[in-house]
Amino acid sequence: MTCIRLTLEYDGTDFAGWQVQPNGRTVQEELERALSRLLKEEVRVHASGRTDAGVHAREQVVHFHTGKKLPLKAYVEGLRALLPRDLAVVGASEAGEGFHARFSARGKWYRYRILRTGVPHPLQARYCWQLAGPLEVADMRRAAERFVGEHDFAAFCAAGSDVRTTVRRIDACELREDGDLLLFDVRGSGFLRNMVRIMVGTLVEIGQGKRQPESIDRLLASGRREDAGKTAPPQGLCLMRVFY
Amino acid sequence: MTCIRLTLEYDGTDFAGWQVQPNGRTVQEELERALSRLLKEEVRVHASGRTDAGVHAREQVVHFHTGKKLPLKAYVEGLRALLPRDLAVVGASEAGEGFHARFSARGKWYRYRILRTGVPHPLQARYCWQLAGPLEVADMRRAAERFVGEHDFAAFCAAGSDVRTTVRRIDACELREDGDLLLFDVRGSGFLRNMVRIMVGTLVEIGQGKRQPESIDRLLASGRREDAGKTAPPQGLCLMRVFY
Repeated sequence: MTCIRLTLEYDGTDFAGWQVQPNGRTVQEELERALSRLLKEEVRVHASGRTDAGVHAREQVVHFHTGKKLPLKAYVEGLRALLPRDLAVVGASEAGEGFHARFSARGKWYRYRILRTGVPHPLQARYCWQLAGPLEVADMRRAAERFVGEHDFAAFCAAGSDVRTTVRRIDACELREDGDLLLFDVRGSGFLRNMVRIMVGTLVEIGQGKRQPESIDRLLASGRREDAGKTAPPQGLCLMRVFY
Repeated sequence: MTCIRLTLEYDGTDFAGWQVQPNGRTVQEELERALSRLLKEEVRVHASGRTDAGVHAREQVVHFHTGKKLPLKAYVEGLRALLPRDLAVVGASEAGEGFHARFSARGKWYRYRILRTGVPHPLQARYCWQLAGPLEVADMRRAAERFVGEHDFAAFCAAGSDVRTTVRRIDACELREDGDLLLFDVRGSGFLRNMVRIMVGTLVEIGQGKRQPESIDRLLASGRREDAGKTAPPQGLCLMRVFY
């Protein structure tokens, strides 16, 4: 059996997230169906992590095992005709023994895009959270810095998540302005369910003056989800890269 | 009667173009339906020009007449809830006597985006023509310069178009590289049906070495559509601005 590692790009808008589920079209399902047709055998893929409905990926990584011997470029070129327009395999390589897309991952980089305009912009709507009204970016930036380091992110985890530990390490957390766009880049060891979106929702409330930057410290200490901000909408979020 | 001028932005992907037609959803139809609901009267809008199915607009301009007296911001804010997600009114103003979105226009700026990568990129697929293989950009640029000036663009007009004259003036024609993206910006007095897309299709054949940059001169002289390149696909094209 060979372990193949694929890099995927997808527009999450019309997907009900990564994981196969009874209702709704998912990335995993579309990919497994295409791979099974290509390899003429049942294929089960494992991703670096699940992405929620509506969340995009510029570089999601998956692996799977197969006994078939296909040239690597067949995964990129051969799958092109078998995959829908909103999902593509952009890279393929042979992975070493013991590689696991999820367990071998050392970290991830997510980007969240906020568009600060009073009017909706259809040409950007799929990939941004459009927010009207002023945002105090300097306060948001001061707050974002407080996420860096190893913390218990229980307050930034969707209610009902079942994980062993809610401690995660954030290596970098930056807020950058690019015209009307506000780009939030966060890199860390791993992320809890909805973690980036709750971070963003909380930062936005800080930018709107509803919270102080220092409140992040209290949230990290209390671990109470109900004290944090609202979950920002999915379409602004993109998994940019997985580090191994 | 007041003449109202609206600026629209739309994602053309899921529209069968601008103009109302029996089959397919159109921008004009969606806008007229929303305006009629807002104003509680039949509204007929006139655009600066039609855009084809799949072509986007960052700033399309339309006008219409109404006897109702609404504050201008009602057109932006009131229409928001009445328009679909891929169409928005981003500006409204009262137009002077005799203003006509099409006949008063002095020029237009179109942008065509080419993404030069061997693999498809779903996050950019809606707004680019994705082209594999090398392109000699310097040759394309030399060719593009030849469009500038007043010429008979008959060779760059969709067959079957019924226009009085195929002479148009191109004021600027630029090709710019931005990473993997190749941006073709063209500004002119007016454009024939499919003109920008045939210009782009021809430039790409020049970039691929299938034609010489000088062949543009012969095309402008011959006026034969069949001698020009293929029509580039619609999703790369965006109407950026209309000048008055």
